[in-house]
Amino acid sequence: MNIAVYPGSFDPITKGHLDIITRGSKIYDKLIVAVLVNVDKKCLFNIEERVELIKKVTKNLKNVEVLSFEGLLVDFAKIHNSKVILKGLRTISDFEYEFQMALMNSKLNPDIETVFMMTSSAYSYVSSSSVKQVAKFGGNIEGLVPNELISEIIDKF
Amino acid sequence: MNIAVYPGSFDPITKGHLDIITRGSKIYDKLIVAVLVNVDKKCLFNIEERVELIKKVTKNLKNVEVLSFEGLLVDFAKIHNSKVILKGLRTISDFEYEFQMALMNSKLNPDIETVFMMTSSAYSYVSSSSVKQVAKFGGNIEGLVPNELISEIIDKF
Amino acid sequence: MNIAVYPGSFDPITKGHLDIITRGSKIYDKLIVAVLVNVDKKCLFNIEERVELIKKVTKNLKNVEVLSFEGLLVDFAKIHNSKVILKGLRTISDFEYEFQMALMNSKLNPDIETVFMMTSSAYSYVSSSSVKQVAKFGGNIEGLVPNELISEIIDKF
Amino acid sequence: MNIAVYPGSFDPITKGHLDIITRGSKIYDKLIVAVLVNVDKKCLFNIEERVELIKKVTKNLKNVEVLSFEGLLVDFAKIHNSKVILKGLRTISDFEYEFQMALMNSKLNPDIETVFMMTSSAYSYVSSSSVKQVAKFGGNIEGLVPNELISEIIDKF
Amino acid sequence: MNIAVYPGSFDPITKGHLDIITRGSKIYDKLIVAVLVNVDKKCLFNIEERVELIKKVTKNLKNVEVLSFEGLLVDFAKIHNSKVILKGLRTISDFEYEFQMALMNSKLNPDIETVFMMTSSAYSYVSSSSVKQVAKFGGNIEGLVPNELISEIIDKF
Amino acid sequence: MNIAVYPGSFDPITKGHLDIITRGSKIYDKLIVAVLVNVDKKCLFNIEERVELIKKVTKNLKNVEVLSFEGLLVDFAKIHNSKVILKGLRTISDFEYEFQMALMNSKLNPDIETVFMMTSSAYSYVSSSSVKQVAKFGGNIEGLVPNELISEIIDKF
Repeated sequence: MNIAVYPGSFDPITKGHLDIITRGSKIYDKLIVAVLVNVDKKCLFNIEERVELIKKVTKNLKNVEVLSFEGLLVDFAKIHNSKVILKGLRTISDFEYEFQMALMNSKLNPDIETVFMMTSSAYSYVSSSSVKQVAKFGGNIEGLVPNELISEIIDKF
Repeated sequence: MNIAVYPGSFDPITKGHLDIITRGSKIYDKLIVAVLVNVDKKCLFNIEERVELIKKVTKNLKNVEVLSFEGLLVDFAKIHNSKVILKGLRTISDFEYEFQMALMNSKLNPDIETVFMMTSSAYSYVSSSSVKQVAKFGGNIEGLVPNELISEIIDKF
Repeated sequence: MNIAVYPGSFDPITKGHLDIITRGSKIYDKLIVAVLVNVDKKCLFNIEERVELIKKVTKNLKNVEVLSFEGLLVDFAKIHNSKVILKGLRTISDFEYEFQMALMNSKLNPDIETVFMMTSSAYSYVSSSSVKQVAKFGGNIEGLVPNELISEIIDKF
Repeated sequence: MNIAVYPGSFDPITKGHLDIITRGSKIYDKLIVAVLVNVDKKCLFNIEERVELIKKVTKNLKNVEVLSFEGLLVDFAKIHNSKVILKGLRTISDFEYEFQMALMNSKLNPDIETVFMMTSSAYSYVSSSSVKQVAKFGGNIEGLVPNELISEIIDKF
Repeated sequence: MNIAVYPGSFDPITKGHLDIITRGSKIYDKLIVAVLVNVDKKCLFNIEERVELIKKVTKNLKNVEVLSFEGLLVDFAKIHNSKVILKGLRTISDFEYEFQMALMNSKLNPDIETVFMMTSSAYSYVSSSSVKQVAKFGGNIEGLVPNELISEIIDKF
Repeated sequence: MNIAVYPGSFDPITKGHLDIITRGSKIYDKLIVAVLVNVDKKCLFNIEERVELIKKVTKNLKNVEVLSFEGLLVDFAKIHNSKVILKGLRTISDFEYEFQMALMNSKLNPDIETVFMMTSSAYSYVSSSSVKQVAKFGGNIEGLVPNELISEIIDKF
C-alpha cells in the first residue's frame, strides 16, 4: 500500500491545502494529513480545532486520515509505514525552503522520499496567514477557505 | 498498480537522472523512462542510442521500462495507464519552467498529476549539457555520468 | 491624456496578453498595443497577421489601438506621446529580464516610466510559445487563446 | 482624474521611497501616500511622525497627499476614488510577496489594479530597516534618506 | 598581506561554515572569523561559547583567527587591516540579502570589497537553525556539524 | 603572489566588466582577464579585437593582464598559477548558472576556488548583449561602455 504523509500547520486549512489533499488522495492509496503541534508559534486555532476542521472538509475523501504530530517528520512517517512525504509548492520561496527540508529529511532517513505537487494556479496566492489577515480586517474570505469553515474563522476575530 | 512516467531528453543520461530513476523506482510500482524524440534539437546521441544507454544503466532496476516518445506527454502517460508524471528539480529556473509545464499539462488532462523530486545535492550541478561541455574539452567526466557510459561519451568527441 | 504603450511579439496573442490589455485599458485613457517586428526571430504569424489578430480580439475596447513598431521602444513611446510603458509579469524570470529592460529604458529616456501588472493567476502558465507547442502536437488550445483565433492558429500547423 | 495610492510603513521614508513617489507623481494626476498604522510591529517613528516626515520631503510635489490608514488597502483605495495601487519592486523577494498581495487584492476588489515600478538601481539596496541598522551603529546614512531627515533619524538612537 | 574577514553568528558553527573557512584560509594569507555579538537575537550558545567552539574546530588552520565583534562590519574590517569581507552563499535568498548587504557596505566604505564563495553542495541544506531544529527533536546531527561539537550541542537540549 | 583569473566573452567589454576588473585588481596581486574564444557563438568583435579593446581600457591598471583562452577554465587557471577564478554577479539567473559552474569547476579541480563580486548597482542592467541591442537601433550607449570604445562599437553597425 502506497501511503503518503502531507504535513503542515493548517491554521486554518485553506482551499490551496484542500486542493493538494484531494489531488494527493487520487495518486496514493492512503493520505495522512499530519497536523503539526506548533509549540513555539501562536496559533489562531489550537491543535484539536485544526484537526477537526480538516476532518470536516475531507470527510468525503475515504482514504484520507487526519492526525496531529510532534517531533521529526521522518519518524512520524516511518511509524505510519509511509515512504513518502507530500508537499505543495506555490512560490520560489517555498521551493528554497522545501528543497533544504527535503535534503535534510533525506539525510535523517534516506528511505523516505519527499515529493512535491504544484498548487493550482487558482490558489497560488492563498496562505493561512493571508486568510487571517483578510478576515481580521473584515474582508471577504469566500473562495479562500472551504465554505463550511467561513463562519468559524470569522468568529475567531 | 502505480505507474509513473519520467520524461526527458537524456542526451546523455547523467548520474542526476539515474538518482531520480532509482529513487522513483522505489516509490512507484513501475517507472517508465520516456525519452523525447527531439526533432528540433541537435542531439549528440540519436534516439535509439539514448534509449540503449538508459537501458544499460537501469538493467538492475526490474520495474523500470525505457521507451521513446513524441507528441504530448499527457497523451503518452494516458496510453501507458500512468496517472503520474515524475520530474526532477535542481534549480529555481527548473522550478519556474516545470511549474508552467505542470499547470499546462494539468489543463490538457486534469487526471494526470505532475510530482517532483529534488535532485540529490551531490548532483545539483550536473546536466547533460554541462557533461558534454566538459567532455568536449577533455575534462574528466567520472562522477558525472554512470561509469559504464564514460568511454561511449568520450568517443563522440 | 494618459497614454500607455504595451509592447510584445504577440505570436500569437494569448488570453494572458488579452487580460493585461483589458485591465490596462481601464486605467489608461488610451492603450497602444505595440507589435514588435522581429526581424531576427522566426515567427508563426507575420507582422500584419499579428496586428490583425489583436485588432480582432480587442475591437470592443474602444481606447485600444494596435500598431507595429521597430527600433527603440522609448522612441516609439515618445513619438506617440506616451510617458508609460506597460508590461505584464508572470514569473521571476520575467521579473529579472524586465527589471533590466526597465532600467535600460529609463537610462535611454528618463521621462518614460515602465509600469508592471501581474498576469492573472489563471493565465500564469500561458505563453505564445507554449500555445504553439500544444497546437503543434494537436493538443486543445481552448482557454489559452481567445476563442475566435483557435482555428487560425490550428490552420498554421 | 487618475488617482494612485502608494502604501507602506515608511519607518522612516528612504530615498528609494521618495524616488517612487517622485516618479509616480509624474504619471498620475494625484498620488496618495498611504502610511500603514502598524499595530503589531514596533516602529521607530510613530504614525504621526512618519506622516510628518513624508509631508516634509514631498512638500514640493503638489499632487502628492500623505494619509495614514488601517484596515484593507482596497477599501482605502475605493474610499479615495483610486483605481490604482502603486508599489515599488527592488528584489525577487519583493516580487513574490507583492505578486501574492496583488492577486489577493484583485480577488477582494477586481476594480482596483496593482501596478509596479522598479526602484532605481541607485537605491536597490536601501530599505527602512537597513537605514535603521546603519544608524544604530553610527554609520553614515547620507544618501540613504532625504538629507533633511538625517538628524531626526540619528536623534532616535 | 591579504586579510579577509568572515562574519557570522555561528550559533553553532556548522560543517558548511567550516567548509568556507577551510577553503578561504587557502586563498587568503589570514582569515579572521568575526563572530557577531547578537544583542537582539536569542542565541543557544553565548558569544564566548561560540568563539570557543570555532577555535576548537579550526585549531589546525594556522592562519585563522577567531574574534567577536559588534557594530558595523566595515569598521571591524578596517581596524583589522582587511580589505575583504568573505561570505558564503547557499541559496537565492542568501544571494538577495547578501547582495544588498554588499552594496550597503560598499557605500559605507568603498575600499572594502565583499567576495562570495558558494557553499559545497554537500552542505547546501545545512544551517545553524536547521541543526538546532534537528537536535531539539533528538535527530542525528552527525555530518551536519564538526564531530567534536556533537555532544556539546546535544547537551544544550 | 595572489593571482586571479576573470573570464568572459567581453563582446564588447562594458562598464560593468570594467568595474569588476578595477575592483578585482585592488584585492589581487595580479588579475588575468581571460577572453573566451567562442567558436560556437557569432561575435560582433573577433577574439583579437576583444582582447585589444580590453587592453585599451585597462592600460592604467598595471597588474591586469589580458589573454585569450580556449578549453577548460580550470586548466587555464592552473597553467597561469592562479588558484582563484573571479566572477561578477548581477542577477539571480547569473547566480544559478554561476553556482553550477563553480561546483563543476570545483569537481574538475578542487584546488581552484571560484569567488564572486556583486556588480555595482549602477551597472546592474548593463550586459554586452543589451549594449549591442541599443547600438543596433541607434540608441545612446554612453555610460554603458567605456567612452573610448563608443565609436568603435557604433562603427560595427
